[in-house]
Amino acid sequence: MAVGDLSMPIMHPVKGVRIGIAEAYIRYKNRKDLVVFELAASANTAAVFTTNAFCAAPVQVAKANLAQANSRYLIINTGNANAGTGTTGMTNALRSCAALAELAHIQAEAVLPFSTGVIGEQLPIAKLEAGLPAALAALQEDNWSAAATGIMTTDTLPKGASEQFTVDGVTYTITGISKGAGMIRPNMATMLGFVATDVAVERGLLQSLLAEVTEQSFNRITIDGDTSTNDACVLVATGAAGNPLMTERNGALYEAFFAALQRSFLRLAQLIVRDGEGATKFMTVKVEGGANTQECCDVAYAVAHSPLIKTAFFASDPNWGRILAAIGRSGVPNLDVSKINVYLDDVCICENGGAAVSYREELGAAVMKQPEITIRIVLNRGEANDTVWTCDFSYDYVKINADYRS
Amino acid sequence: MAVGDLSMPIMHPVKGVRIGIAEAYIRYKNRKDLVVFELAASANTAAVFTTNAFCAAPVQVAKANLAQANSRYLIINTGNANAGTGTTGMTNALRSCAALAELAHIQAEAVLPFSTGVIGEQLPIAKLEAGLPAALAALQEDNWSAAATGIMTTDTLPKGASEQFTVDGVTYTITGISKGAGMIRPNMATMLGFVATDVAVERGLLQSLLAEVTEQSFNRITIDGDTSTNDACVLVATGAAGNPLMTERNGALYEAFFAALQRSFLRLAQLIVRDGEGATKFMTVKVEGGANTQECCDVAYAVAHSPLIKTAFFASDPNWGRILAAIGRSGVPNLDVSKINVYLDDVCICENGGAAVSYREELGAAVMKQPEITIRIVLNRGEANDTVWTCDFSYDYVKINADYRS
Repeated sequence: MAVGDLSMPIMHPVKGVRIGIAEAYIRYKNRKDLVVFELAASANTAAVFTTNAFCAAPVQVAKANLAQANSRYLIINTGNANAGTGTTGMTNALRSCAALAELAHIQAEAVLPFSTGVIGEQLPIAKLEAGLPAALAALQEDNWSAAATGIMTTDTLPKGASEQFTVDGVTYTITGISKGAGMIRPNMATMLGFVATDVAVERGLLQSLLAEVTEQSFNRITIDGDTSTNDACVLVATGAAGNPLMTERNGALYEAFFAALQRSFLRLAQLIVRDGEGATKFMTVKVEGGANTQECCDVAYAVAHSPLIKTAFFASDPNWGRILAAIGRSGVPNLDVSKINVYLDDVCICENGGAAVSYREELGAAVMKQPEITIRIVLNRGEANDTVWTCDFSYDYVKINADYRS
Repeated sequence: MAVGDLSMPIMHPVKGVRIGIAEAYIRYKNRKDLVVFELAASANTAAVFTTNAFCAAPVQVAKANLAQANSRYLIINTGNANAGTGTTGMTNALRSCAALAELAHIQAEAVLPFSTGVIGEQLPIAKLEAGLPAALAALQEDNWSAAATGIMTTDTLPKGASEQFTVDGVTYTITGISKGAGMIRPNMATMLGFVATDVAVERGLLQSLLAEVTEQSFNRITIDGDTSTNDACVLVATGAAGNPLMTERNGALYEAFFAALQRSFLRLAQLIVRDGEGATKFMTVKVEGGANTQECCDVAYAVAHSPLIKTAFFASDPNWGRILAAIGRSGVPNLDVSKINVYLDDVCICENGGAAVSYREELGAAVMKQPEITIRIVLNRGEANDTVWTCDFSYDYVKINADYRS
């Protein structure tokens, strides 16, 4: 029950990136479950990973390899997360890199492995290795859409973003894919993102740009707060566009590139919420007038994680009492509830901590009927603002995650 | 779908406490929704209240009155929480105290008001006031069971605890009631607890004993983490038993009294979880071997709040990957997952951060079939332990809280 338009855009190829997809029978038959990205020698690669202490073997290996060598290949398998697999899991993650390195005649540290799928089962490494030659043979630039499908787990639709922008007569490209249904199905691990551009960007700058756009996109979405063990997002700058290496945050190209990067990441992140398991509503939680970003996020997440609010939105119930209660428990110091106003889109449902005088049930009901709703919370205690995106909480959510194994 | 035996025990009257119940038509007809406790002049009263910044008017008035006078009466209404009601709500809470004070010829500050029910609607104070004479006329010692029913909101059953113990030939009594379905229904506020004993206890000691037993009972249960706006728990020591005023934590009477107090509070707290909305499983989350209490609680709550784990338990799915993932995101510093063991009752499902060698699916499945299950998490990094109680997450949970208003 995806919310909004999740259709794939035209996925422009990115010079310097080729993608190969193959069927490795990791978990299911008749589905391509192995994706290999080949990156140009000139490419700089940046990545961010899950903060979960219980992080998967491939996450640990990817982190280490990224620090040791210039990345030339990414291997992504679906069907198995290689998480909770102990030393055998580490060995298998390293083996996958070594196997590809041997085939590609590069060092193993130049390969970053990513896995998504069942937690706690050993990765069928022999099957993965057997699938690598086919994936390499399939390498081509125009394979982004197939890759978006190849990395899906419980996603109902492939997720992609792609745009081109022109600066000084030169056209540049940003294209990326993501996967994840926000929640993880029984034993399924969740979000991955892979974005590439042909803009030449210095590696340190690329990492800081990735960190910044991720903070405002993938780090601002939640379905239930259950951080996955395998989350990872990679940004590759191939440099194939031939611009002078971008090393600073200034200039027309930087401005255009960064804006496109923000749009692409926001789309890829929001697509995950729109495809959230059982989602029937796409909710934007805006907190304004906070003393600082932290308390804005604390309030936004208290609201976005509240099963009470999420079930009320599923029922199209403009339940402002639950919203105020969540704000009240968000841990913001010295919060003066009597200063708080809450809006559903443009309808003020709550002012000065109580029912808005102008509020009428039918106004709230009209807003709640929509598939996309903004909850705007005005704290009136400072200048900071922040936004989090989430979805509602439906019967299907329970059904999908209770997994009757029928 | 309450889990386990929630039947009311024999509710022993407590000398020095009389209870009157009346029908005030606060929200529903044909139900007694107004409860008045009359406390002996000799009684000492202690109370703890919600930490929610958005706390209801009666909570604010009860806090203030408790500090200003020796409490002689408690007024509890169900059907309306008098929360999110602004200054009118404060006025109404104060009016309820003044009205009872006038009838009872005492000062208004000697009355503590409590409300539970709809958030954001004004308390029908005239109806409440009109009901007070009937409640006072109905005062009698043996009314605890009726009171337990009188304070219910979405509870499926009244909740009570009562026991007597004998020290040096004198028999003492502790009797208490609680309400709350753990979650709050659309616009319904939640947990209340009222406990009385005839033991004479100095007020300061009584407050510290209440704080301690509450911390290990009501403060260790969760259904969804949505702290209510009206939570309150009151402990009254009437002194009617005639023992020398207890002022210190020593002696045979103290030992027996404190043990009985702990048992009573734990029962009253666990009854709320057992009656949790849609609950089909009663889950005890034990965390052992932590460096300190805080991190044990952080891990326990991460597990107890995880919709992934709660839906898995609803499905009787021994999903240890989800448990490890929740532990991993609990924010414990420098957590070494490879030292963690997880047990379902006595079945080790996970050792050293991975699948237990001895584990077989049928062993976990057998445990999960039970209505009551203990998740024991051994961190192996210190000597601290703690325990939290919660329930699973079912279709009925969504149904009850989505409130189709059909």
